[in-house]
Amino acid sequence: MSDVKNSSMNIVIRIQIDKTQITFSDIAKEIGEAGGDIVGIDVISSSKTHTIRDITINVNDQKHSHLITERLKSIEGINVMSVSDRTFLLHLGGKIEIQSKNPIKNRDDLSRVYTPGVAQVCKAISEEPNKAYSLTIKRNTVAVVSDGTAVLGLGDIGPLAAMPVMEGKAMLFKQMGEVDAFPICLDTKDTEEIIQIVKSIAPAFGGINLEDIASPRCFEIEKRLKEELDIPVFHDDQHGTAVVILAGLINALKLTGKKLSEIKVVLTGIGAAGTACAKILIGAGVKNLIGVDRNGALHRGEKYSNPNWTEFANLTNPDNLSGSLSDVIEGADVFIGVSAPGILTVDHLKKMANDPIVFAMANPNPEIDPELAEPHVRVIATGRSDYPNQINNVLCFPGIFRGALDCRARVINEEMKIAAAEAIASVVSENELNETYIIPSVFNQKVVEKVREAVIKAAYQTEVARKDPLRVESQLS
Amino acid sequence: MSDVKNSSMNIVIRIQIDKTQITFSDIAKEIGEAGGDIVGIDVISSSKTHTIRDITINVNDQKHSHLITERLKSIEGINVMSVSDRTFLLHLGGKIEIQSKNPIKNRDDLSRVYTPGVAQVCKAISEEPNKAYSLTIKRNTVAVVSDGTAVLGLGDIGPLAAMPVMEGKAMLFKQMGEVDAFPICLDTKDTEEIIQIVKSIAPAFGGINLEDIASPRCFEIEKRLKEELDIPVFHDDQHGTAVVILAGLINALKLTGKKLSEIKVVLTGIGAAGTACAKILIGAGVKNLIGVDRNGALHRGEKYSNPNWTEFANLTNPDNLSGSLSDVIEGADVFIGVSAPGILTVDHLKKMANDPIVFAMANPNPEIDPELAEPHVRVIATGRSDYPNQINNVLCFPGIFRGALDCRARVINEEMKIAAAEAIASVVSENELNETYIIPSVFNQKVVEKVREAVIKAAYQTEVARKDPLRVESQLS
Repeated sequence: MSDVKNSSMNIVIRIQIDKTQITFSDIAKEIGEAGGDIVGIDVISSSKTHTIRDITINVNDQKHSHLITERLKSIEGINVMSVSDRTFLLHLGGKIEIQSKNPIKNRDDLSRVYTPGVAQVCKAISEEPNKAYSLTIKRNTVAVVSDGTAVLGLGDIGPLAAMPVMEGKAMLFKQMGEVDAFPICLDTKDTEEIIQIVKSIAPAFGGINLEDIASPRCFEIEKRLKEELDIPVFHDDQHGTAVVILAGLINALKLTGKKLSEIKVVLTGIGAAGTACAKILIGAGVKNLIGVDRNGALHRGEKYSNPNWTEFANLTNPDNLSGSLSDVIEGADVFIGVSAPGILTVDHLKKMANDPIVFAMANPNPEIDPELAEPHVRVIATGRSDYPNQINNVLCFPGIFRGALDCRARVINEEMKIAAAEAIASVVSENELNETYIIPSVFNQKVVEKVREAVIKAAYQTEVARKDPLRVESQLS
Repeated sequence: MSDVKNSSMNIVIRIQIDKTQITFSDIAKEIGEAGGDIVGIDVISSSKTHTIRDITINVNDQKHSHLITERLKSIEGINVMSVSDRTFLLHLGGKIEIQSKNPIKNRDDLSRVYTPGVAQVCKAISEEPNKAYSLTIKRNTVAVVSDGTAVLGLGDIGPLAAMPVMEGKAMLFKQMGEVDAFPICLDTKDTEEIIQIVKSIAPAFGGINLEDIASPRCFEIEKRLKEELDIPVFHDDQHGTAVVILAGLINALKLTGKKLSEIKVVLTGIGAAGTACAKILIGAGVKNLIGVDRNGALHRGEKYSNPNWTEFANLTNPDNLSGSLSDVIEGADVFIGVSAPGILTVDHLKKMANDPIVFAMANPNPEIDPELAEPHVRVIATGRSDYPNQINNVLCFPGIFRGALDCRARVINEEMKIAAAEAIASVVSENELNETYIIPSVFNQKVVEKVREAVIKAAYQTEVARKDPLRVESQLS
């Protein structure tokens, strides 16, 4: 079940050629001799003595690419300026752009979208601020905010380096949910500053998606922004993951015939995602959930310096168990790991109740090797695309924001998140459901619409939607 | 020369109809009797008893629109929810959107633009931050930043109400200059906070366009951001206006045969635009410039509480004249008003030197009625589109940012601004040049390219460009 590799790939090598020393045909010969197949040439610039060209070469793999590059570097008169593979090429110049919805064709158009006509639109909003929802981009626009401190598996790489992730997120928002999202990468790690900045830039936006902000800062930032803003604030690393795990669990339990209210769940990694995951599971009906972190099971007999852990211990572990993962996994129906590679062993699996369900979400290396686990579990899910049952946030955020924006929800509350999870789970029909298919593909086009509908319904039921329901309903059909 | 009005216009009236009380044909009859022509109907929603419809009606004018709306309002069973004219319709849902440059077609695409493939791109930027210019949207993206305190003629209307202007600006940036601009409207008026926020959000952007920020705060904000950021910061209300006025003046002087170094210029309104205007004129060679504000000519015999005025008095008025506008206008070759309606009289014009040139920029009502001025001046220019010689910032900002981004300039300096002005002026050929055509139309497609080339050249000459010139040159051709 490993990644299907393409048998070949294209790279683009940009070289500066000193025409007085070497001709292009010499270079082509060298590339050919090294086994590279030139499939494209672009002249980037040219002067009397020098020329810069992009040479697109079909190669076998990364190693082959390296070999050809080194060969070119060793030749007199060639300066290898850059080498790009397809992933890098897809990022050239960034992945998103701003478009006008209507072209400005003439002076009349100009006088309506800009001065002087625009003044009456500004005035209308100034007199009735709510009109910003109909007369500006606010109703469809989400800020993807990061400080670049917890980016993927890379950690604190800073705001500049975080941009490709946030741009990717914006692409997904648009393609999956038709939401306009714009990346805001902040050159500060100060909690108060981040809160203040997001509050200050909020007027243009209908929602805030927090992304890749390190724990514990992310908790305070999300909590305060929720209190102080009247638009939805959603930390995707926490809640997106939690929603999709719950979706997967709902379907996995259908296979084992167990109920949320009856299962014993052991959860490892009590950080941002783990905390959110525990909350949504309890909200959805789980009674017996035990959190495990570096010092073992979180329980009420211990004093924790981290206030989130104290709160966690108070909300979970009804039997107040203590001890290591190895102790508390005894008889557990479900293991959920949002922690570290390899911490779950086959011995642990053997201690679990019948039909064990395992969510091993550590990325890129799960809490247990799925192939090792498979013989001992009923269902295993991971965050990886190269195994079945991929728990991917992409299933959640486009639809949940689409729904929240469309009914103009002031928040995304727990009820809306649970509704989103149930909606995602519902996309897998009873006929389709099996051990290797508990969660729909990220490309399943039913997901966004189902999530949207469920989220809107929950928003009205909990009275956080602000839009005339009659108008929203008409859009649903 | 007044605005050409369309003989008719379309309005859209959204009504809720109580089906138990009235039928649609009754309503159509009422509209027809009032002289309205129904050209479109959209059913927005429908229930057993009620229906909401958008009715598009062709009417003669605003008055006619009002008449029809009032008639509908008076009918039992109809609730008029909203009435929109074309300007408002063009703003529905906002004027810009985010687009992906490439669709995510399959799992392979997804794994390159998002996790896990995106990680190597993030890592590359983390190791070499400069790569953000090639691998993110930075190289083509400008923040349009406003606090909404000096919007058009409306003043301090706040960040929400400022959005339509900033969105319009973003449309123009894209259409004219292929620059991706995103509106950042700030819910704060605090100078230090604004500086700090713009610095914090700067990583994603290749330039900052400040817009509609009240004076004197705008000076400090621009000055500090220029010092503390390594990307161009440009307050368009100041410098855009100054650049286009200089462009117009260069061409007007060609008609009168006078030189910048020889003319006497009187400038009224020493705020943001006035100060920038004086600076660029002096930078371009003007020796004799006198600023006039509420207390008369700024000179070195007076103490000003506003430090900008002190600085202004030190840099201008070589003969240290004092007195009112009426005094100092004596013998002036050029009057430039960025001040208030009606302050310039025909008597003033009669005191000027031969071939008076007048830039009456107060908006929407100029310093002197152009029709009143015309018999007494050689050239008159205004900010209005319904008179010839419209001085419009749109001629400047798309090209100046296009150039600055393309050569990766760290600033937009005075040399680049003067180069931009000369480039704008050069678009009007000697054959075309006349008293009513000193400045090209905003739709003249030569403007951006000319400005871009001139700005890039000036950036290299002043050594503020950071991009390999060979590569930039190739893009120019």
